[in-house]
Amino acid sequence: MSLPASPATPTATITSVVVTPVAFADPPLLNSVGVHEPYALRAIVVVHTDSGHYGLGETYGDEVHVARLQRAGEFLVGTDAFNINRISERVSASLAEDNGAGGHGTGGMVTTTSLDDRVLSAFDVAAMDIQGKVLGVPVSTLLGGQVRDEVEFSGYLFYKWAGHPGFAEDKWGAALDPSGIVEQARKMVDEYGFKALKLKGGVFPPEEEALAIEALRAEFPDMLLRIDPNGVWTVDTAVRIGRRLEPILQYLEDPCLSIEDNAAVRKQINLPLATNMCVVSFNDLPPALSAGAVDVVLSDHHFWGGLNRSRLLAGIAETFKLRLSMHSNSHLGISFAAMIQLASVTKNVDYACDTHWPWKLAEDDVIVPGVFSFEDGKVRVPTKPGLGVELDNEALARMHQQYLDAGLKKRDDTTYMQSIVPEYELKTPRW
Amino acid sequence: MSLPASPATPTATITSVVVTPVAFADPPLLNSVGVHEPYALRAIVVVHTDSGHYGLGETYGDEVHVARLQRAGEFLVGTDAFNINRISERVSASLAEDNGAGGHGTGGMVTTTSLDDRVLSAFDVAAMDIQGKVLGVPVSTLLGGQVRDEVEFSGYLFYKWAGHPGFAEDKWGAALDPSGIVEQARKMVDEYGFKALKLKGGVFPPEEEALAIEALRAEFPDMLLRIDPNGVWTVDTAVRIGRRLEPILQYLEDPCLSIEDNAAVRKQINLPLATNMCVVSFNDLPPALSAGAVDVVLSDHHFWGGLNRSRLLAGIAETFKLRLSMHSNSHLGISFAAMIQLASVTKNVDYACDTHWPWKLAEDDVIVPGVFSFEDGKVRVPTKPGLGVELDNEALARMHQQYLDAGLKKRDDTTYMQSIVPEYELKTPRW
Repeated sequence: MSLPASPATPTATITSVVVTPVAFADPPLLNSVGVHEPYALRAIVVVHTDSGHYGLGETYGDEVHVARLQRAGEFLVGTDAFNINRISERVSASLAEDNGAGGHGTGGMVTTTSLDDRVLSAFDVAAMDIQGKVLGVPVSTLLGGQVRDEVEFSGYLFYKWAGHPGFAEDKWGAALDPSGIVEQARKMVDEYGFKALKLKGGVFPPEEEALAIEALRAEFPDMLLRIDPNGVWTVDTAVRIGRRLEPILQYLEDPCLSIEDNAAVRKQINLPLATNMCVVSFNDLPPALSAGAVDVVLSDHHFWGGLNRSRLLAGIAETFKLRLSMHSNSHLGISFAAMIQLASVTKNVDYACDTHWPWKLAEDDVIVPGVFSFEDGKVRVPTKPGLGVELDNEALARMHQQYLDAGLKKRDDTTYMQSIVPEYELKTPRW
Repeated sequence: MSLPASPATPTATITSVVVTPVAFADPPLLNSVGVHEPYALRAIVVVHTDSGHYGLGETYGDEVHVARLQRAGEFLVGTDAFNINRISERVSASLAEDNGAGGHGTGGMVTTTSLDDRVLSAFDVAAMDIQGKVLGVPVSTLLGGQVRDEVEFSGYLFYKWAGHPGFAEDKWGAALDPSGIVEQARKMVDEYGFKALKLKGGVFPPEEEALAIEALRAEFPDMLLRIDPNGVWTVDTAVRIGRRLEPILQYLEDPCLSIEDNAAVRKQINLPLATNMCVVSFNDLPPALSAGAVDVVLSDHHFWGGLNRSRLLAGIAETFKLRLSMHSNSHLGISFAAMIQLASVTKNVDYACDTHWPWKLAEDDVIVPGVFSFEDGKVRVPTKPGLGVELDNEALARMHQQYLDAGLKKRDDTTYMQSIVPEYELKTPRW
């Protein structure tokens, strides 16, 4: 029998990396550290190779992070986009003398992620995009193969103002009490078909937020519900509210900030605890497991080192009987594609994943539109080579101009809040 | 700028799986359960696809294991060789009603490996071989990219008879005391250039084996040395011998059988403990870590579920501060290629890997010869697409005939030993 010859070994050496900060309109979403500014920042990473194929990555747009991405990009020129291990080495080399300060991209909410993994992430994603394009396979294939062809998301509810001061009201209107949250949820569920809803808490006194969850349960009897006070509750508050909501919640997310406090809470309530604040790097896993602090890790490829490292996290979760879901920051289509590719290959993503997607204006993106659509809360996994999304250079230029016009250099929900509510104080725990 | 189109999405649907048991000559190597039989058994797995490319896997040749491989092979027809997750699901489906008895392939030495991972392994390897051939990349690229282009091995010393009763003496001669072991080591080091040596112990009283290690140290002042009594020492014996050899050994391998006993030993000696007996599946990792039982896991893709799952093990080892080396059973060239591809991408393989390769006759293999050569104990990583080895169909037929002629259906070092030394008794711990 004559066998087919293998194709010539494909290569894709990185020739240049272009990092472009962009801004997109963001509603006044309230959280435990303040309120989202009128524009959210992202960095778009385009990795060019001598194969002619480029790869896309998307990550935080804070100035410090952008500078790190640019430096890492210089270190990557000449590296094989097929060698993720080498890319990781080069990124770490670019950070060897970095003091690690700032650039977390989370407005001060998550500050203990791994510097190396946080910078690696966008390059890992871009390299996988390149590999897929060169080989003609979707990233899901390179990550082990799809276990599902659509990925389920949860609706992400926020307390919010009707609009930013000085800006027009957005289409969602105000939500500052249980009925406002229920109204927001109804709109979001009608439009996207979500079967799970998460309320961003930590904004109002815990009893008021518990009332909002109870109002959601009354309105949506079969909906899976979660609340996330972003670590600003004391152990006592978390136990009190946790017990109250035990019969209603799917899980309670980050009631307290530390592994120790969450472990103390977990011992006193019969409800899974989830986190994207106290377990945010591989170093956090051994102590969190020892303490029995959490049941569910909300993975996030932006701080867990990209898609390959997130696969490792999933394997660790399976081995150590942690469950998985997925965290989201305000993001654009490249991150969305990466999140979907990852979830499509990860059998132990046990819950609908978070996404901020509904809060973004459809016209605010850097990719050629039309890739993603929701049905029953689910998005079909792109099957084109690589991530399955294509850069729209004109859109990128427009979004970069928006960044320049916005004048923001980092995410800072607290200062923005204080510019509107001068007496606002940062406080952890708050209740 | 005009960008190149991606190639058409490559596919490789599995059309048939052929499992062929083979036998190859094996010297009378003594161990804690008896002595190697005149022939070692392996199963060669050839996975055919509609791409025209085939993939190779190699695993244990015990009859029970071969039957499982054949059944799994039937479940895999129609599956995409690019979807490792689906292959894993199908293999598990084929084992759903399996009672899990037997088929460990280790002559009773390692019996607690995962059934599913043990059967999956050869198919994972074969699928990666297919993917590499279809795409034109070595398996190392698909596993994250080489961190080294040659892999270091250790010399594997055994107490042995001069030859099997009724057979001619082999080229190595007898080794039944320290001077015999030193003589064997000298031959092996001269031929292969090893910088590390491991002595298979558990055969003679521990003090005699300690003398052999001390004799090796005297003969080879810079050699890295290990001893592996395969779990047949008591805690007291392990502590006594461990303390004696502390200044000499690189690590002590499986002094005792259980996690608990090794943890007790570890607390009393200042020497890393390695294992391929008490941590042999993902289920063993949480209790072993809790107990502090081991420092080094000797990975083995044959029982850790193949190359992708072995990458997960490596990531877990990195996360939980375990070190890695690699275990070997008597094997042929397909397994050797897989071991080398895996080690080439695993940055935290911290020690020279084990291999039985020198004990195999050069002419006993199923692959086209000439791929592997040793220099200074290292083997260059094959760079051709896939595993980088090619099946020799005539050699496979010859090795299968050798299997039929040998008449062995499973590895059983103990019964063979008792056929020669009737008073031989299996005993754990023995000392």
